[in-house]
Amino acid sequence: MRVDGRPLRTLWPTPARDALQVIDQRLLPHRLQVEHLADVAAVQRAIRDMWVRGAPLIGATAAYGIALQANVDVRDGALRDAAARLKAARPTAVNLAWALERMLARLLPLPSRQRREAAWAEAGSIAEEDVAVNVAIGRHGLPLLQAVAARKCGAPVNVLTHCNAGWLATVDWGTATAPIYHAHAAGVPLHVWVDETRPRNQGASLTAWELGHEGVPHTVIADNAGGHLMQHGLVDLVIVGCDRVSASGDVCNKIGTYLKALAARDNGIPFYVAMPTSTLDRALRDGLAEIPIEERSAREVTHIAGRTAAGEVVEVQLVPDGSAAANPAFDVTPARLVTGLITEHGVVAAREDALRRLGASA
Amino acid sequence: MRVDGRPLRTLWPTPARDALQVIDQRLLPHRLQVEHLADVAAVQRAIRDMWVRGAPLIGATAAYGIALQANVDVRDGALRDAAARLKAARPTAVNLAWALERMLARLLPLPSRQRREAAWAEAGSIAEEDVAVNVAIGRHGLPLLQAVAARKCGAPVNVLTHCNAGWLATVDWGTATAPIYHAHAAGVPLHVWVDETRPRNQGASLTAWELGHEGVPHTVIADNAGGHLMQHGLVDLVIVGCDRVSASGDVCNKIGTYLKALAARDNGIPFYVAMPTSTLDRALRDGLAEIPIEERSAREVTHIAGRTAAGEVVEVQLVPDGSAAANPAFDVTPARLVTGLITEHGVVAAREDALRRLGASA
Repeated sequence: MRVDGRPLRTLWPTPARDALQVIDQRLLPHRLQVEHLADVAAVQRAIRDMWVRGAPLIGATAAYGIALQANVDVRDGALRDAAARLKAARPTAVNLAWALERMLARLLPLPSRQRREAAWAEAGSIAEEDVAVNVAIGRHGLPLLQAVAARKCGAPVNVLTHCNAGWLATVDWGTATAPIYHAHAAGVPLHVWVDETRPRNQGASLTAWELGHEGVPHTVIADNAGGHLMQHGLVDLVIVGCDRVSASGDVCNKIGTYLKALAARDNGIPFYVAMPTSTLDRALRDGLAEIPIEERSAREVTHIAGRTAAGEVVEVQLVPDGSAAANPAFDVTPARLVTGLITEHGVVAAREDALRRLGASA
Repeated sequence: MRVDGRPLRTLWPTPARDALQVIDQRLLPHRLQVEHLADVAAVQRAIRDMWVRGAPLIGATAAYGIALQANVDVRDGALRDAAARLKAARPTAVNLAWALERMLARLLPLPSRQRREAAWAEAGSIAEEDVAVNVAIGRHGLPLLQAVAARKCGAPVNVLTHCNAGWLATVDWGTATAPIYHAHAAGVPLHVWVDETRPRNQGASLTAWELGHEGVPHTVIADNAGGHLMQHGLVDLVIVGCDRVSASGDVCNKIGTYLKALAARDNGIPFYVAMPTSTLDRALRDGLAEIPIEERSAREVTHIAGRTAAGEVVEVQLVPDGSAAANPAFDVTPARLVTGLITEHGVVAAREDALRRLGASA
């Protein structure tokens, strides 16, 4: 999508294929800085420390990590070891494991001399397929927004979203934002309520930033506010992303998603999840019992970074000395609260039978 | 309650009755600073700008504002005018109107020469009655925690609370915290999940601070985390305060309370509201339709204050330049989601008939 009017993606390989370039998203919205990742360790750190985040982008980044490994050592053990190290960087995102397994499945059967070339090509395919998937999600989500717009006689369609499932979470377009960007481009009047999404504030810092650069009207709110807005008819539908979806349709996404799904249900508001099929984990049935939830550093709760009046980005402490903090990073929204999953193949119900058919047609 | 081992209240008049002293709560948890309020304008500012906050404390503070007015002009018009100015400082808290009406009802029938003395006495009574009410709420709430403790065989009772309905929101003891402090004193093993409560972070900055000084084990969490903790059996009950309760039991409290009530209901967890009877607004029936919700400054969402590593308290910007923010300060939790109201007269159901009887016995 666009930044200051110019097209940009979240990652791209150098022409010499000696490094991967990524936006260091920790510095947004205050500074746009591109980082140069030259080896597996750098990629691992970028994933672990959330320079890149968002399930699809993590997958594509990890795939390029394998390509960087293939620059230096293409033996089976080296590739497997790199995949294991990259996989350990973030435990929740299923795309990470999916992308790494796909890379290994592509490379290991090949003779050594073909592996390097194939690794860069396969990582590139993963990135391009992500873009195509998101465009398809946007195309399938667009009619949902157009249908609301038709009812509202020119008044803006109010969409609530949580965290950042925008282009910054993918290679381009985003998942939850793809229908929004498609609708905006199609002239549908829109307004997006952006949950700030504590503790890392990806809504306030990333979603608001990218919506602003695309010219989509939006308002940042505290995570606490969504229920109240829904009670008062100020939200027409919710669209969020996902980090992992179980075979029965339980949705693991950024902590707090479940609370918004409860409020949407209580107020009769559709709750959609934008889901690339790669995020579906068919090995899991009961999302609540089976999806491991990453517990991140307490410091993300006790401290926050922001920009001072002088323009300096500093970290400040919010919590008294001596108070503990806990930081579960994701929660699971049971399938019963999900109106539909917007996939690259169409909108499907969050039910085991529907998801099984999705696999068959894919 | 105690700060650094020494007893402290949130407000007290000077011995000479020429000022009211209050803790400037905007500076907590980073600095304990006592402010001297010498006239109605100072009291109005302290309420409006949230040096003092919390429905019971706002009421007591406003009552002392009338006493300060009575120091300089006790005529009917002057007292009514002071009450009107104080009432306008915060629109949502019913205790504010309640305390001011009580002051006027006490003073206006008196001859002029008795009004000043009576004003200080009445404000003092309001403050002392608040303390007594909170102690009674603590006494009535204690068995709820003891009952959970009895089931848990020595494991700590996990209480979740939102915002600050602690002693800092009252004159002493707090409302939602009174049962917690009583249970802690009675040796009930406890652990409190403290919602940070964006945008003003009163949970992280005030509730955590006061629990820490009382030695109550606690953990600060992002507002997004409560639902996940409930899904995983890590919350035994919820206790929150309230700013206004309708005759039918709808509870207006800090924004985000409704989301926690939905999660408690979805997980079969008791959701209690500590309610001094003065917070009951019998003139309202439908809380959602009739309670006006204060919209506070967008800056509370776009910026946050915290302490730098150097020990300086600074405000930092969280949201991109040009992004709008909205800041509804309260929401309404429908009575159907409330397990019970812990009042100074006992625990009652959030139902019109029960609340009517509460009035009759009060």
